[in-house]
Amino acid sequence: MTVTNRMRGVLYRLDASIRVEGSHSRAIADLVEQEWRSIHPEEPIIRRHIGVDPMPARAWATAVFASGTPEESRSDEQNAALTLAATLTDELVSADALLFAVPLYNFGVSQHFKAWVDMVIADHRMAAGAEPIMAGKPAVLVTVRGGSYRPGTPREGWDHATGWMQRVLADVWQLDLKTVEFTLVGVNPALDQFRDLARRQRAEAEEQAIRTGRQLGAAVASVEAVRTAAPLRSPGLDRTAV
Amino acid sequence: MTVTNRMRGVLYRLDASIRVEGSHSRAIADLVEQEWRSIHPEEPIIRRHIGVDPMPARAWATAVFASGTPEESRSDEQNAALTLAATLTDELVSADALLFAVPLYNFGVSQHFKAWVDMVIADHRMAAGAEPIMAGKPAVLVTVRGGSYRPGTPREGWDHATGWMQRVLADVWQLDLKTVEFTLVGVNPALDQFRDLARRQRAEAEEQAIRTGRQLGAAVASVEAVRTAAPLRSPGLDRTAV
Repeated sequence: MTVTNRMRGVLYRLDASIRVEGSHSRAIADLVEQEWRSIHPEEPIIRRHIGVDPMPARAWATAVFASGTPEESRSDEQNAALTLAATLTDELVSADALLFAVPLYNFGVSQHFKAWVDMVIADHRMAAGAEPIMAGKPAVLVTVRGGSYRPGTPREGWDHATGWMQRVLADVWQLDLKTVEFTLVGVNPALDQFRDLARRQRAEAEEQAIRTGRQLGAAVASVEAVRTAAPLRSPGLDRTAV
Repeated sequence: MTVTNRMRGVLYRLDASIRVEGSHSRAIADLVEQEWRSIHPEEPIIRRHIGVDPMPARAWATAVFASGTPEESRSDEQNAALTLAATLTDELVSADALLFAVPLYNFGVSQHFKAWVDMVIADHRMAAGAEPIMAGKPAVLVTVRGGSYRPGTPREGWDHATGWMQRVLADVWQLDLKTVEFTLVGVNPALDQFRDLARRQRAEAEEQAIRTGRQLGAAVASVEAVRTAAPLRSPGLDRTAV
């Protein structure tokens, strides 16, 4: 099998918060990571802190135009942009499981996460119409919102980010995605009236984070077991069908 | 009246396309601008080409943290970020009408438009909870999409950008917003099967652009007429009520 020559159990973790201290999305994602770690204590974790170390502002447009430029005619800037797109994609490809921690900012997607997704899609392996090379990989998306946008709240429908993130991660890239949603009501003093709700939601989000972290760890372990076991059970089987 | 000491009929135009040549959103927005021009031939147009000249990648996070830093303790980088946020907001405030030309990229909002909106909201005048100083200004949003996401098409619901842009421009900033939507079916050869539909949609979008451009021009002209006329009709009236 083509996958056996690289290490199994590599986690990719992306954080889009612009905060390092006091980041709630990081705190929830830490719970997922801890559970992953309890099953994969030794394996490397690939980290991207895109809210703190963002994509260069012109990188995506440069990569898009570079893709349409013959290789020998590309500028240094174009080569650098395509190299960055390839590096980001290599990181995803080399991971066995993925964890994305992305806050909602101004009712929409994190600008840094959108810039990162655009860059990844600028790589030819992840371009529109390409074979979905990430299909079936287990992944967790942790989203954090400043207020509740659930049905029945005044801002129902104001979360314009989660739907798009799930669209790209689950529908386009075909990851096996679980979403953990956490709402900051009660953390923000303006929302104190919802304090009890907030406490319950925090507890729910933490339980969900722990549960999905455990599932994430178990998913890769079991994939590994199946892949290791398969040749023993049916050695004559065409491996492209596995 | 406080508004008479500045020029009337200033248009603000923002383009988010990463293309200069061959940009369909620019072409549709040009039609809106031409109609505006026919009514306001002399007045200045404030332009931002955020897809070509984007916000610096770290500017928004820097501005957010600067806002929470006492003025005398701010770094040069923080001051520069807040100055940029203020400049962007000044441009909006000084305009009488607004035109936004923003393509859909990767089923989501233009990364550059999100970065620009975040920066504007980083200015204290446009922050969450501030008086909506842009309320009622006439505005046009031109969006361009690579394929149709209308009800009944296979990708219904895959436009995750227009809803968010309308949320910010119409609901948060309270602009008097018209949206012109254009779909690139027929332009993209992969979508040739929809060529007739495409021709009809292009014609519709162009008509809509011309109509909204005319309305945009007329809206500001009529506001101007009302404001000029009001003191003559009722000189004793409390002007704060106008």
